Amino acid sequence: MIDAATALTRLRERRPLVQNITNYVAMDVSANVLLALGASPAMVHAAEEAADFTSISDALVVNIGTLSPPWVQAMHLAAERANTLGKPWVLDPVGAGATPYRTQVAVDLLRRQPTIVRGNAAEIMALGGAAGTRQQGVDSRETADQASDTAMSIARTFGVVVSVTGPVDLITNGSSTYRVANGHFLMPMVTGLGCAVSAVTAAFAATEPDPVMAATAALAVYGLAGERAADGAQGPGTLRARLMDALYLLSPADVAQGARIVAV
Amino acid sequence: MIDAATALTRLRERRPLVQNITNYVAMDVSANVLLALGASPAMVHAAEEAADFTSISDALVVNIGTLSPPWVQAMHLAAERANTLGKPWVLDPVGAGATPYRTQVAVDLLRRQPTIVRGNAAEIMALGGAAGTRQQGVDSRETADQASDTAMSIARTFGVVVSVTGPVDLITNGSSTYRVANGHFLMPMVTGLGCAVSAVTAAFAATEPDPVMAATAALAVYGLAGERAADGAQGPGTLRARLMDALYLLSPADVAQGARIVAV
Amino acid sequence: MIDAATALTRLRERRPLVQNITNYVAMDVSANVLLALGASPAMVHAAEEAADFTSISDALVVNIGTLSPPWVQAMHLAAERANTLGKPWVLDPVGAGATPYRTQVAVDLLRRQPTIVRGNAAEIMALGGAAGTRQQGVDSRETADQASDTAMSIARTFGVVVSVTGPVDLITNGSSTYRVANGHFLMPMVTGLGCAVSAVTAAFAATEPDPVMAATAALAVYGLAGERAADGAQGPGTLRARLMDALYLLSPADVAQGARIVAV
Repeated sequence: MIDAATALTRLRERRPLVQNITNYVAMDVSANVLLALGASPAMVHAAEEAADFTSISDALVVNIGTLSPPWVQAMHLAAERANTLGKPWVLDPVGAGATPYRTQVAVDLLRRQPTIVRGNAAEIMALGGAAGTRQQGVDSRETADQASDTAMSIARTFGVVVSVTGPVDLITNGSSTYRVANGHFLMPMVTGLGCAVSAVTAAFAATEPDPVMAATAALAVYGLAGERAADGAQGPGTLRARLMDALYLLSPADVAQGARIVAV
Repeated sequence: MIDAATALTRLRERRPLVQNITNYVAMDVSANVLLALGASPAMVHAAEEAADFTSISDALVVNIGTLSPPWVQAMHLAAERANTLGKPWVLDPVGAGATPYRTQVAVDLLRRQPTIVRGNAAEIMALGGAAGTRQQGVDSRETADQASDTAMSIARTFGVVVSVTGPVDLITNGSSTYRVANGHFLMPMVTGLGCAVSAVTAAFAATEPDPVMAATAALAVYGLAGERAADGAQGPGTLRARLMDALYLLSPADVAQGARIVAV
Repeated sequence: MIDAATALTRLRERRPLVQNITNYVAMDVSANVLLALGASPAMVHAAEEAADFTSISDALVVNIGTLSPPWVQAMHLAAERANTLGKPWVLDPVGAGATPYRTQVAVDLLRRQPTIVRGNAAEIMALGGAAGTRQQGVDSRETADQASDTAMSIARTFGVVVSVTGPVDLITNGSSTYRVANGHFLMPMVTGLGCAVSAVTAAFAATEPDPVMAATAALAVYGLAGERAADGAQGPGTLRARLMDALYLLSPADVAQGARIVAV
């Protein structure tokens, strides 16, 4: 069984340093989410130093949201270093399927075997070549279950964990599969919250050796904080501010009580 | 007459995908404003994919706030594609007049005939070559009416709609001119809110065929949300969070009642 | 004695234009902090225009948080122009010590003799070559006093003011030294607040000729606003929003009463 409460305790005790090579839009919210949760964020992406920084980090996030060739070069250098040193890294294939360039970059990074791939259903389906659905920006309305087959196929083919987020999330390594039912409908109305959960996933992967457990605990903790933040929020603006408060205030006991994780 | 309430209804029904090639400072607030309003934002600017993304977008924003040569290249590629496909696009000439490079880039983009140019009075005056006023950052203290002649001249010369924002906004296509008196004095104390209204203008232009009506409805809806957000805000920090809430909560009936639009 | 209240009054009267060449994560919060305080921010970093903009600015911030070669080039061009024109500039050596590239860039910029260097203890120690402490992201847990000797050595060697922030801050030009005890433990839980205080330092340096007084007043005003913001905040998310409100509402009388500055 997934013990998200213990995973949160361990994360806060170790305060992992998480390197983010992420998009311009999500940098601010990702860093704030990591700090509020109890991790230590750093945004380092220049090819001149990205891999050096990976060497001193506990985990790495590679997010292609606002990709460009110099950044893609740094993503590969950092991912290669993470693999060499056995450090966990998370790929967030933002907007995969939207343009040929973006899809190709996402697939090239997937071939480097990230520890965990975290995306919405449309991104995961595009990544797996299973669908040609029009990408409505980066906020998909598909459900994670619709991407279930593709997720399992990616997991088995590439030896990675796939974490598909949506109203109900689905996490699989191709054999063990979990669903997480935490979260709130207002969360997709705030930009970057999907990207930030990829950073949270990396923070849990830094301190929890089993990547399925790490990815699952991350979604339960984050979604539960979102639920608490939404309680009393008037809309997406106050929700965002309150989400940082909720992550900061969330206790392992809250998680033990509120996590809605089921094995499939 | 401008029916901003109906324009808002239509926007939310169609949920347009708005591509933003915008500055680093305003990306976060622009994306959040678009989501809260009911549109779907995407920030895509690499030359390798910018025009491909324009092909699947409903509208485009080109904002030169933190310009650099690779981005300017992508701006031209995306604007050209938008023109080819007949998709609306908005130029925000942030800080035009502040440096020779910036002014030249703004003029080059204006020559590509955006659907709408949205700026403050100093930017519009600099763009029209009508003034050599010192640029005080990007938050001008000039009034929109002072830029009225320049705005009409730009509109007629280039065949564009010009939207000049300030305490009272002025929108013109060179023949029809409107003023919008919505908004709150605290709004310029939050960074990026001017840039974000350019994104809102693009969202309305995606779903409202008359660009004068789109630009005018955008300013009324946005300004009205700002008024509601300011009611109860202690200062610019809480105003920003509450603006997202207000955009999310604003109903077409609110707009019908609160929009202060007058034909000149 | 440091008169932070009068320094704040002067800053608001003159509303200095502060050019920021800063990192992607801190741009938003830096701009919002400057606006709320009463200054005028601009983010301008392209080599094609950076120095031209320095010519019309009242002060410059050079922050290496998310550095890359094209930005470093612009940093040098802008710093050189500031020196030529006798305009104050602040160096924020974010993450110095974390990678060889980053440390080298920080040292190269220090050799250009910024008016003020603002960093946390680990950064200042790395910059001075006094320590090889592992960098835990950019949020150091060292105390400013531990960097005191290094700060004084840097100040004397390079002829700069060094401002070391922490639970208690330390400001020195190598002969006069002050401590500032304002601030709140929640502030390091919000990303970019350290970077933003470098921007605040630049704004004070624009309107206060003595850089020791400018740096000290900046930390007292900012820390005091943080204290007021924390009073009633639930966590780091609401703190951030309330910090902008507090900066906007803070009066010179509040500063005269609340500033905790002591000469060492």
